[in-house]
Amino acid sequence: MAAKAKPVKSKSRVKSAPAKKAPAREKKLKIAIAGFGTVGRSVVKLLLQEANDCFELTHIFNRGVSRKKVDWVPASVRWTDSVNEVISSDIDVFVELAGGVKPAGDWIRKALRAGKSVVTANKQLIAESGPELVDLARESGRRLEYGASVAGGIPAIIGIQEGLAGDRLYKIAGVLNGTCNYILTKMESTGASFESALKEAQDLGFAEADPTADVEGYDARAKLVILTQAGLRARVKSEQIPCWPISAVQAVDFAYARELGCAIRQISLARKETDDGLSVRAFVRPALVPASSLVAHVEGSKNLVMATGQYAGQMVFSGFGAGGDPTAVAVISDLYSIARSGSKPPSNVPEVETPKDVSGEFTAPYYLRFVVKDRPGIIAAVATVLSRYGIGIDAVLQRPGYPHSALPFIITLETCRSAQLGCALQEINRLDFHVEPVLCMPILLD
Amino acid sequence: MAAKAKPVKSKSRVKSAPAKKAPAREKKLKIAIAGFGTVGRSVVKLLLQEANDCFELTHIFNRGVSRKKVDWVPASVRWTDSVNEVISSDIDVFVELAGGVKPAGDWIRKALRAGKSVVTANKQLIAESGPELVDLARESGRRLEYGASVAGGIPAIIGIQEGLAGDRLYKIAGVLNGTCNYILTKMESTGASFESALKEAQDLGFAEADPTADVEGYDARAKLVILTQAGLRARVKSEQIPCWPISAVQAVDFAYARELGCAIRQISLARKETDDGLSVRAFVRPALVPASSLVAHVEGSKNLVMATGQYAGQMVFSGFGAGGDPTAVAVISDLYSIARSGSKPPSNVPEVETPKDVSGEFTAPYYLRFVVKDRPGIIAAVATVLSRYGIGIDAVLQRPGYPHSALPFIITLETCRSAQLGCALQEINRLDFHVEPVLCMPILLD
Repeated sequence: MAAKAKPVKSKSRVKSAPAKKAPAREKKLKIAIAGFGTVGRSVVKLLLQEANDCFELTHIFNRGVSRKKVDWVPASVRWTDSVNEVISSDIDVFVELAGGVKPAGDWIRKALRAGKSVVTANKQLIAESGPELVDLARESGRRLEYGASVAGGIPAIIGIQEGLAGDRLYKIAGVLNGTCNYILTKMESTGASFESALKEAQDLGFAEADPTADVEGYDARAKLVILTQAGLRARVKSEQIPCWPISAVQAVDFAYARELGCAIRQISLARKETDDGLSVRAFVRPALVPASSLVAHVEGSKNLVMATGQYAGQMVFSGFGAGGDPTAVAVISDLYSIARSGSKPPSNVPEVETPKDVSGEFTAPYYLRFVVKDRPGIIAAVATVLSRYGIGIDAVLQRPGYPHSALPFIITLETCRSAQLGCALQEINRLDFHVEPVLCMPILLD
Repeated sequence: MAAKAKPVKSKSRVKSAPAKKAPAREKKLKIAIAGFGTVGRSVVKLLLQEANDCFELTHIFNRGVSRKKVDWVPASVRWTDSVNEVISSDIDVFVELAGGVKPAGDWIRKALRAGKSVVTANKQLIAESGPELVDLARESGRRLEYGASVAGGIPAIIGIQEGLAGDRLYKIAGVLNGTCNYILTKMESTGASFESALKEAQDLGFAEADPTADVEGYDARAKLVILTQAGLRARVKSEQIPCWPISAVQAVDFAYARELGCAIRQISLARKETDDGLSVRAFVRPALVPASSLVAHVEGSKNLVMATGQYAGQMVFSGFGAGGDPTAVAVISDLYSIARSGSKPPSNVPEVETPKDVSGEFTAPYYLRFVVKDRPGIIAAVATVLSRYGIGIDAVLQRPGYPHSALPFIITLETCRSAQLGCALQEINRLDFHVEPVLCMPILLD
């Protein structure tokens, strides 16, 4: 009986009990970190605390490295300010966390050519040179991963590029800048002005002393470029995407948006059209979104990415889009991907195509907010111009309690082309009753 | 000059213009589909329409296959009702879409042992035998992918298992059953009763004629088991997770929930605790969630998956969790993953551990709804029992306009252990003023 029972037991081990032992690990991957700032420190901490089984940290590279040294990194790690020393060593993966297009891009090219795989969190560089670097990695027979370059800890790149590989995506949209989302949601919930919400964001460390890149939309735009490459397989350049600042949004706009069942968010959007060759419509701008939508409920400094496909419909990813630890999770996840699937570049990756045109042209209903020195005939004057451009008015709202000398009111428009509307607005802005220029925002219903 | 210009041009091609041609494709992967129902048809359609460049469909297997044949599938595809014929052919990937534990599990084992990779959408099977099949795939040197087995088109498995590989996840939660979400959001928005919302869901094809698996929570539970394996690396069995039906929720509960700033959703939750060996707390039950949270804004039949990690915080994935096309996207995405990274199983995948205990025990604030034959002293009687168990009352709410013979009111409790509360409720339910048993729901604040 005992002799018989043995093989049965060994067979059933596979079936019922989980293997007690981890499978034999491959050789640990040797890792060098370039850039020991906030993200670099988080990555090293996470590597040492949580990922010791797969990876061995061998080098930390930083310019003027001596001032960067910390005592919680093992003595076996070599601190250096020579990138050549790092790249000519026997590391498997070069992790670039220094940021900026130069010299980080040159380091990455050098590392790939030297047969190293590369993981990077560099938004500017991937937005500018992503497809070129992917080609170079393929030619070098090595991996290039940049999951951390957009939306920090949100696995948007892998989710879109691999998890939705089976769909035909045609739209990417989202809340891609945590600073703007913090400011707009603060204005919405407290009635604060843009200036005081910005000040608070700066005091709390959510906004830089110079907030231009966030407020004007340039930061979100770089992320949109990367997501457009990953999801729409379309190569657009940052400078092709128009941006509108959120600083024109005022407390009164949130009150009107609420009456319309909407919230106001900084929306980055890229939409692919393939009717007559590939073209892409894209923008970064404050917009009205339905108050019931997920995008209206992204809290504070979090990010949200939406990808819409022909087959699976709209998919949403949301979480912390910035910060040392969330970004470090994305970096380490990319390292695990190399540990799991090896250093060879993936096959059968669809090409990134350059669209024949890219524009901010967008057909939607619009929200116009006026601040005027009140007098009879204002709405008639505006309506006359709009009707000349074939643009229909949906509603006119005017809240009580504002002075006649600076009276805000809004007009919502039926669906129209932004080019048409742009021409109409030029004319309207020339009328003599304005206290400030008309604020124009699209109303995005899906 | 011309001679000089050439190499410059060829060099700069890499730099500025994207490669016009796709890189040379590997040999196409040969695919067999087992199961030609709703999902099978969507997968075949998508394969033929969108994924022809990487895959060649060679077999469609179904029992009684002759009644399944359609004319839009190329003549080169072989229709068969012999699974052995399929597995002994030269296919690369066996795609199992038949569902059910038996015989699908046996087909998959056979296919793996015969050196085929496997892609499956089989929720029941992966919930029951996922870790065993992953082990078998590893031993067989082939891939097993099951991204379609949970939450349809939402890339939750890859997002959690790969995109968040660098984090230490400790909680998985979500809205995992579209039928229940449809019913609850319908009740919430229209004030409908459970019965009429269910009837409407059935008429629209969102609910089965026998809705037990959805309403009782069994369907969501199987998905929770799979997500717990993928995200928490913990092996739990379906029967270890307690379920509460949503049918006890009434229109009045939504009114009270709204007063508390909450919505009511069917929540599936698993939480890992590692203080003293691995233990898992898990349940599927109707629960109150903040009205401002993303989980309260999942529309109709959509799903939402939340994964919370020690480093990146809470990450959310949302989209269509069922239906032919969304599920087909997940299947094709898994096929692309094999086309991209090859048929070898991944290395360095963390083991799935069996927890020392699994329970529905959960510490939270709670919502209790009573329907009573009104008389003086009811609240005092309830409060006396609660206080004997050391459970604090947070608030008592009673909306006007209900008959004294069947008066609904609610009590919200301060944070307490569900075991304690269960004992108190047994006593409370024995009091003689109830018209129906007390409904108890946790209030989930994060």
